[in-house]
Amino acid sequence: MSNQYQKKHPERDGRPEDDGTLLEGRNAVLETLRAARPVDKVFLADGSRNGDIAAEAKRAGVPVVQCDRRKLDHMSPTGNHQGVIAQVAAQEYAALEELFAAADARGEAPLFVVCDGIEDPHNLGAIIRSAETAGAHGVIIPKRRAVGLTAAVARAAAGALAHIGVHKAGNLAQTLDELKQRGVWLFGAEADGNAPLYEAEFDRPCALVIGSEGQGLSRLTREKCDYIVSIPMRGRVNSLNASNAAAVLLFEAVRRRMK
Amino acid sequence: MSNQYQKKHPERDGRPEDDGTLLEGRNAVLETLRAARPVDKVFLADGSRNGDIAAEAKRAGVPVVQCDRRKLDHMSPTGNHQGVIAQVAAQEYAALEELFAAADARGEAPLFVVCDGIEDPHNLGAIIRSAETAGAHGVIIPKRRAVGLTAAVARAAAGALAHIGVHKAGNLAQTLDELKQRGVWLFGAEADGNAPLYEAEFDRPCALVIGSEGQGLSRLTREKCDYIVSIPMRGRVNSLNASNAAAVLLFEAVRRRMK
Repeated sequence: MSNQYQKKHPERDGRPEDDGTLLEGRNAVLETLRAARPVDKVFLADGSRNGDIAAEAKRAGVPVVQCDRRKLDHMSPTGNHQGVIAQVAAQEYAALEELFAAADARGEAPLFVVCDGIEDPHNLGAIIRSAETAGAHGVIIPKRRAVGLTAAVARAAAGALAHIGVHKAGNLAQTLDELKQRGVWLFGAEADGNAPLYEAEFDRPCALVIGSEGQGLSRLTREKCDYIVSIPMRGRVNSLNASNAAAVLLFEAVRRRMK
Repeated sequence: MSNQYQKKHPERDGRPEDDGTLLEGRNAVLETLRAARPVDKVFLADGSRNGDIAAEAKRAGVPVVQCDRRKLDHMSPTGNHQGVIAQVAAQEYAALEELFAAADARGEAPLFVVCDGIEDPHNLGAIIRSAETAGAHGVIIPKRRAVGLTAAVARAAAGALAHIGVHKAGNLAQTLDELKQRGVWLFGAEADGNAPLYEAEFDRPCALVIGSEGQGLSRLTREKCDYIVSIPMRGRVNSLNASNAAAVLLFEAVRRRMK
């Protein structure tokens, strides 16, 4: 029997399953923020009296998402959220330094994947999985306007999170600058790129930069890339699913590095 | 704001959106089966009095899935299913002949993708999208134990279904035999394959055979393959997401065919 419906609707009794990455209620969220546990996002219901939590999140550098109370009702594992839910990471994030250290430890030129705003947990998980299988040394995601390491991402990554570091960049543009200063070449992927995919020098220290599902690379990210690699489009549809694009680039890097 | 929750829970008021691919109720399903409209699957609630519908489905060669009534309650767009829901295709299937004709029309050696039991609509949609962008001439899926062309698959395919034919094989093993008789080489993808990916002769007439998410290639399918292509695994995780594996093979075929 196909389990497509079970996958689409994990909440068997009308509630999402409690995977331990959602904390809810005023006290739980406030104490977590104060304890400096890594929080990806705080969701606040419109009109709820949670100004102190918003302030604490701001102090901790955690993005706050204001939204309709029904959205919180829908997310809530217990149904008793008091207008506030915090999304904590399913896995700890790595420092950028750890990503470079992973390359050093293997005596290889760094190979990173930068995700410029991936919102679909299934896509981010698949990218992390492909990065690990291709022998990449780390994945970099932005703090805002992107999915973090949620339980759904961890599930889609199929165990890869135990073996590859994911760095969350507070300011992605600054992180890209730092990569360049450290000798990493930035290869963005787009349909109308100027560098043919199968000639790209992925054997250099490099980061493969993948755009978001809807918008592709942001303008700022695009400008920072050293090359915009063009995946050859042989059909009428002129873009790939984000994780498929990442896989194509990653395994072209594997091919190039085998030489 | 991230829309991950909206994506995970499309049913805003507790019901799936009605995308027109689910028909429910005894009369609607019975008439559809009798009219020979393409039906992918019929779901029957355990204990419901729908023996006539099961018989009609059998006559029409449509798989019947017996399941708990609560599953139908959950799927139902209207909430009034009378114990029976039919899943109809979001797009018509193509004959195998049409796939060969697409290759002929472009004067190219056939390039097909065979999906051996993909169950996740997101994966099948992404595979169809990648196949189209890589210039493949068709996708082949089995009738049973796999997702068909549902609305979710059409959405994930991002428009590609308008430009590439998908053939539904009543008996996948027979279809693989037919492909071989017509000169198509079958390249299965597995972690422990015997043929190095970057040396595979994808410029011949070929079909790239992708296994299911959980089990990989079935034993029978594996035996029919002429080559088992090995995607190099450089990390600890030793398999790729199914759609990512398909993308890697497809764009290696593009590279090989550019020569």
